[in-house]
Amino acid sequence: MDEKELDELMVELSALLEGKDFRQLKDRLCDLNPADAAEFLETLPDKEMLMVFRTLHKDMGADVFSYLPAEAQEKLLTTMTDKEASAILDDMFVDDAVDALDELPANVVEKLLRFTTPETRRTINLFLHYPDDSAGSIMTTEFVRLKKEWTVDQAFQRIRQVGLDSEMVYTCYVTDANRNLEGVVTVRKLFLTSLDTLIGDVMETEVIYAHTTDDQVEVAQLISKYDFISLPVVDQENRLVGIVTVDDIIDVIQEENTEDFEKMAAMRPSQKVYLKTGVFEMARNRVPWLLILMVSATVTGRILGSFEESISLLPVLVTFIPMLMDTGGNSGAQSSTMIIRGMALGEIENRDVGKVLWKEIRVAMLCGLTLAAVNCLRLIIFNRGLSLLVIFVVCMSLVIAVMIAKTIGALLPIAAKKLGGDPAIMASPMITTIVDACTLFVYFNLARQILSF
Amino acid sequence: MDEKELDELMVELSALLEGKDFRQLKDRLCDLNPADAAEFLETLPDKEMLMVFRTLHKDMGADVFSYLPAEAQEKLLTTMTDKEASAILDDMFVDDAVDALDELPANVVEKLLRFTTPETRRTINLFLHYPDDSAGSIMTTEFVRLKKEWTVDQAFQRIRQVGLDSEMVYTCYVTDANRNLEGVVTVRKLFLTSLDTLIGDVMETEVIYAHTTDDQVEVAQLISKYDFISLPVVDQENRLVGIVTVDDIIDVIQEENTEDFEKMAAMRPSQKVYLKTGVFEMARNRVPWLLILMVSATVTGRILGSFEESISLLPVLVTFIPMLMDTGGNSGAQSSTMIIRGMALGEIENRDVGKVLWKEIRVAMLCGLTLAAVNCLRLIIFNRGLSLLVIFVVCMSLVIAVMIAKTIGALLPIAAKKLGGDPAIMASPMITTIVDACTLFVYFNLARQILSF
Repeated sequence: MDEKELDELMVELSALLEGKDFRQLKDRLCDLNPADAAEFLETLPDKEMLMVFRTLHKDMGADVFSYLPAEAQEKLLTTMTDKEASAILDDMFVDDAVDALDELPANVVEKLLRFTTPETRRTINLFLHYPDDSAGSIMTTEFVRLKKEWTVDQAFQRIRQVGLDSEMVYTCYVTDANRNLEGVVTVRKLFLTSLDTLIGDVMETEVIYAHTTDDQVEVAQLISKYDFISLPVVDQENRLVGIVTVDDIIDVIQEENTEDFEKMAAMRPSQKVYLKTGVFEMARNRVPWLLILMVSATVTGRILGSFEESISLLPVLVTFIPMLMDTGGNSGAQSSTMIIRGMALGEIENRDVGKVLWKEIRVAMLCGLTLAAVNCLRLIIFNRGLSLLVIFVVCMSLVIAVMIAKTIGALLPIAAKKLGGDPAIMASPMITTIVDACTLFVYFNLARQILSF
Repeated sequence: MDEKELDELMVELSALLEGKDFRQLKDRLCDLNPADAAEFLETLPDKEMLMVFRTLHKDMGADVFSYLPAEAQEKLLTTMTDKEASAILDDMFVDDAVDALDELPANVVEKLLRFTTPETRRTINLFLHYPDDSAGSIMTTEFVRLKKEWTVDQAFQRIRQVGLDSEMVYTCYVTDANRNLEGVVTVRKLFLTSLDTLIGDVMETEVIYAHTTDDQVEVAQLISKYDFISLPVVDQENRLVGIVTVDDIIDVIQEENTEDFEKMAAMRPSQKVYLKTGVFEMARNRVPWLLILMVSATVTGRILGSFEESISLLPVLVTFIPMLMDTGGNSGAQSSTMIIRGMALGEIENRDVGKVLWKEIRVAMLCGLTLAAVNCLRLIIFNRGLSLLVIFVVCMSLVIAVMIAKTIGALLPIAAKKLGGDPAIMASPMITTIVDACTLFVYFNLARQILSF
């Protein structure tokens, strides 16, 4: 099925709904991949969403539910009866259920969990207490646990037994009596081994794992580095308590990237989809940084103010302000973006600060000189009235601005991380504001010295 | 094994190498996960890298090789003998081999492939002809192919037979005599089905697939939407030719995100790791946009030049230029970033342009008025000498600047996509340059009108 067919399907489903042909609608929906069924539900108004959702089979219902975006899940959970909600939560994989409940107020969660099985309730409550964005908060407890004294044949039986409830059956984990993680074996390996071999003899003992409190970004880096489809998670006592699966890691990666994009454009990160975010909320996410940066920019204004005399004597100096400010800002943005991205991907560490600085200084030199040369030519050709001294001041300032911008752009993100902050905050808007002030200060001082006002 | 243990291991391996204890070094390396062994090799100088690489077992060698970064792969391939290179390419999964060869000149590739099996040579050559960043270029041909008239038991036998050569055995694809894709079945489903059931009766027939020429981003979106661990790829005649696996999709996602970050900071995207990119190459990636934007900024300079008279009459007007330019640039960056990201994630489509615009205008109104109010207060309190009319002009310009910035910031990325371009190009540097010109034009015109020069 490609995108066109999917669009046609959506139209067909809408027609069935409009014609109130619920039986047909239900049949078509249950044939669909749950992700597609969720995509259809999402487009419906609240009341119809619940109505259509209720027509789904119980199992399909839980599947479709886990593919819905957070807002739709919240709406459904709070409009359906508590019994219905509990049934769905019971049927969902624990990590998906936790995701759905995570943003709801504690009393609502309690109410919704009232009718779930004690087992589900206990696990969900445990999960809700893991720190946000930790390995614990994104793991699932449904996985295949083996014993090393079992044979491969017994392992296959075990997989058949628990397969239905396990989100990820393809990597099995071997634990001892104390639930300590002893080894790992893939189903692929089991296929290639004779049935009477002991698990202890085929399992890999150098297991790569994460702790429940590890940041989800570290988990993502491990899974991505080793090309795993799941990673075991252990608690403080090194007992295996869950696994993180690769599909959740893709979501983590996209989420973290979106957050970085937002921070780097001077916004408070939001986990909501653009078209579903209200105007007030959006303004609330954007105004704080705009305010901070606006007030900071007045420092640059004051620097300009202190050169009012030079400006009245030679107003043409003002016409180069936008070019100098923009070039400084852009140069700084390039460096800070490269460094922030490199740190996010784990390619640049704090200890690389020397190497980074030395590289940026040389790059800045090359960029600055190229820009100054082009600018010098341009001014000589197109601004014939301009004195050579003024051209010299402008080009000289350009080189210095690029040098300052690239140095600050490289250093601030690393400094932010060293101080325990978030490098992404030190992105182009912040760098631009700082570089602007430095650039104009250098420019007008050079002008005053060289043109000797 | 956690990060600390990994660091210790690296030190131990270096010590073994320094002591020329190659036997011990080889044993330790072969016990490691190939990703970690690659990480060690990567740190070595060229000559030692080849020497240590040669000590590895053949199979392990191919595995380790596929985890090395592109530059290290190139170095190894071109320093080892063609026979050695061919053996490794034969042993690697096709998609990894293609990745390694992709950046090498055609004559080098031909030389390297001389000693591979005809089968490998044919497949690799075919793959190298798929367009860059297409589904074809990232797929692998090693997967499990089933027939619908087989039983589940036969399917298991088949998986056991080909398992060793298949990168992804957990999702099996069912094809007819013409290799047309008929269905898909997961190993998990096979486990839960009795052994004498026919594959045709358990397989899923509504298969989600991609075409070889589809963009890798679309493949990533499909895998991420449906939580697949692999996706089938068909050619123009709808024959199944390969699969894309989730581990490669994680790389695609990170690569595309990095590219967007680079483009949005006015750089030509580069696939190289920061610390491994030369100074000249880095400058080459950064200078073109800096030049374009610098020259564009002279337009803003000319606008300022046309108001030289106003500036000499009231030089204090100049001191508000940085604040207005920065706020305009930041406001535009916020909007364009949200829109570009929303489009990259498939959340915003071209048809949403009306909704986006209406939302941005209201957000701009809220942001602009808040900023103007704060600014007005600040000026009244701290700049007592300033006439109320000047304050009015500044605050009014601020509101208009934010409105213009957010409108342009929202429209340009969508327009770029509609014209077949890349929305990420229309990010903060470009927006800033355009918004600067508009803002200063509005500001000085307002000043001239209201202060009646």
